[in-house]
Amino acid sequence: MHDVWVAGADMTRIGRLAEPLPDLMAVAAHAALRAADRDRPDAIVIATMNPEEFVGDANFASNVATHMGFADVPVIRVETASSSGAAAFYAGFAQVASGLARTVVVVGGEKMTHLPTPKVSELIGRSLDPYERSYGTTMPAFAALVTRALMSRYGVSEREIAQVAVKNHANGTRNPLAHFRQEITIDVVLESRMVADPLRLYHCCPISDGAAAVVLTAERASVRVAGIGQGTDSLALRHRAALTSFRATQNAAAAAFAMAGFGPDRVDVAEIHDAFAPFELISLEDTGLFPHGKAGPATLDGQTALGGRLPINPSGGLKARGHPLAATGIAQIVECVWQLTGSVPRRQVECNVALAQSIGGPGTNNWVTLLEAR
Amino acid sequence: MHDVWVAGADMTRIGRLAEPLPDLMAVAAHAALRAADRDRPDAIVIATMNPEEFVGDANFASNVATHMGFADVPVIRVETASSSGAAAFYAGFAQVASGLARTVVVVGGEKMTHLPTPKVSELIGRSLDPYERSYGTTMPAFAALVTRALMSRYGVSEREIAQVAVKNHANGTRNPLAHFRQEITIDVVLESRMVADPLRLYHCCPISDGAAAVVLTAERASVRVAGIGQGTDSLALRHRAALTSFRATQNAAAAAFAMAGFGPDRVDVAEIHDAFAPFELISLEDTGLFPHGKAGPATLDGQTALGGRLPINPSGGLKARGHPLAATGIAQIVECVWQLTGSVPRRQVECNVALAQSIGGPGTNNWVTLLEAR
Repeated sequence: MHDVWVAGADMTRIGRLAEPLPDLMAVAAHAALRAADRDRPDAIVIATMNPEEFVGDANFASNVATHMGFADVPVIRVETASSSGAAAFYAGFAQVASGLARTVVVVGGEKMTHLPTPKVSELIGRSLDPYERSYGTTMPAFAALVTRALMSRYGVSEREIAQVAVKNHANGTRNPLAHFRQEITIDVVLESRMVADPLRLYHCCPISDGAAAVVLTAERASVRVAGIGQGTDSLALRHRAALTSFRATQNAAAAAFAMAGFGPDRVDVAEIHDAFAPFELISLEDTGLFPHGKAGPATLDGQTALGGRLPINPSGGLKARGHPLAATGIAQIVECVWQLTGSVPRRQVECNVALAQSIGGPGTNNWVTLLEAR
Repeated sequence: MHDVWVAGADMTRIGRLAEPLPDLMAVAAHAALRAADRDRPDAIVIATMNPEEFVGDANFASNVATHMGFADVPVIRVETASSSGAAAFYAGFAQVASGLARTVVVVGGEKMTHLPTPKVSELIGRSLDPYERSYGTTMPAFAALVTRALMSRYGVSEREIAQVAVKNHANGTRNPLAHFRQEITIDVVLESRMVADPLRLYHCCPISDGAAAVVLTAERASVRVAGIGQGTDSLALRHRAALTSFRATQNAAAAAFAMAGFGPDRVDVAEIHDAFAPFELISLEDTGLFPHGKAGPATLDGQTALGGRLPINPSGGLKARGHPLAATGIAQIVECVWQLTGSVPRRQVECNVALAQSIGGPGTNNWVTLLEAR
């Protein structure tokens, strides 16, 4: 298996954007190619969760490749719900690792803000088990159930959960590409309107537009893909062994660390899937970055803030950078690459190893990617 | 790069089916695992073109894996419009070739017959360039344009084109899994109702439900993947160099034969993407199986019939076996594997090398796969 390197990474601004989705994805892909000093890839992998319903176009891989000016370059689309970006990264990784391609652009994007929020919510909610959906379950309702269990069974406090959002908003003020760039306080979180009890507006990531891209190569570059792991779980919540941890993240982390040949202690910075604030706490424990029950207190302590022992979501995370579904898994990796190459002055973490963790659907298809500066 | 083998292959009946799509896909996948004498894969790749709009579910990779009883096995979805099955086969191939997985199930499926035909047509039509769609272009209209050019520029005759459908219906009578199992004549084709001038009903494949699966392994089995190639082209027809040949197929064939280290003369049987009858003639020339201008006369001559010099679409092809979009690319490979292992008594071709060719969208994302008996 060939070593795989990230030769370049870039992304668009995240937020409520006017440009059509193929434009956003082409802009991100070309910026990543420029960063990699490459004119043209051998292959392209795109990630979009649902362009058919979000923007009304099918055959989207060909659409994006044509739009990039690469109508003659092989392209496929990969989809695993909200972790599609991470899955596409893996598909590109496999092409380079096998020797089938030497330079692959992986680009993820989504555009949703032009649609009414209830419509977007309904479309995303179809990631849940059809039987459970028939009772009206939505993604925030699922997250609320998890949060309630976390609080009642393990005594995770309201303030610990709220501090995740506070920290990520603080980081977002240092990221010029972030959707949200204003500080908030614990009180602002706890007084925001209820979405799904106990989750309030500021516990939840926004609906965002945007695109992100990386260039993977078989040639030595400054960042190496040290490990990549996928974990999965039953679509139905009622068939899960636990609500307060995600087996899919645990299995993904175990696979990624096994491939890398090192453990969580080597990780210096991480981008974590905080679609809902409590998911950051769960994910920090599922990845082994913090022992069980310690992520909440550590967050309140400032250990995961910039300047803390282990900075988490320096980009602002899904909460503040934003969550353009299939772009997110790649945007996380872009941030890791920028951190490892010392490219983000106002939020720079001293680091040699970075971890990105992405959640697909209700924790059914999760990914952990480990990147190492060489 | 590891050699990749097909250890098992199977599929459901194709047609108007009552079972839900996850059932169809689980049935095909388990049948392929049984044929491969494997209990459990390391990874799953699924292909569906548009489950969100055809059946109303997102996060479909997790849905299918859960339904298979493999909720804890890594799964991704791959999509390239109507060639999604072939693209998923390639993604599975890359995982085994790289050493990332040793046993991968690739399963494709689609379910559409419960929807009104105009709705299905509209959804499939969104594979075309958005600008050209704004003038009312549909997939049959695109195919009609190609057919008209073929007839007027190269003198391909009505009877040559009709004979493709006649031959494939004859083959379908020998395939118990085929959507259509009755013989037709050239007159029946030429007297059927007009769909898009000059294409009539019997020039066009049906809308079908069904699923197909293969098991790919790194361990020696009776069929080896000798070569696999992808070719792409501009989404917009107005930006194409030619209408009467598909650059995407030509490039896919060149790549597949280069990987295999042999040429079209070694091919003994082929499954070709005859979504519209004239596409079989175009594809036979684009793959190099027949010289330019010879596919029509050869078809009328019986050279591509069972018992002919080079039998094409022994399964019945898209025309008679049916075309459940993302299942098709894999169903073609299932037929090739069955031919190579001597498993299809009433339509058996003596063969050592088989070729499968799949077209994505309006010829924008095409695949050629070469399989060899060992």
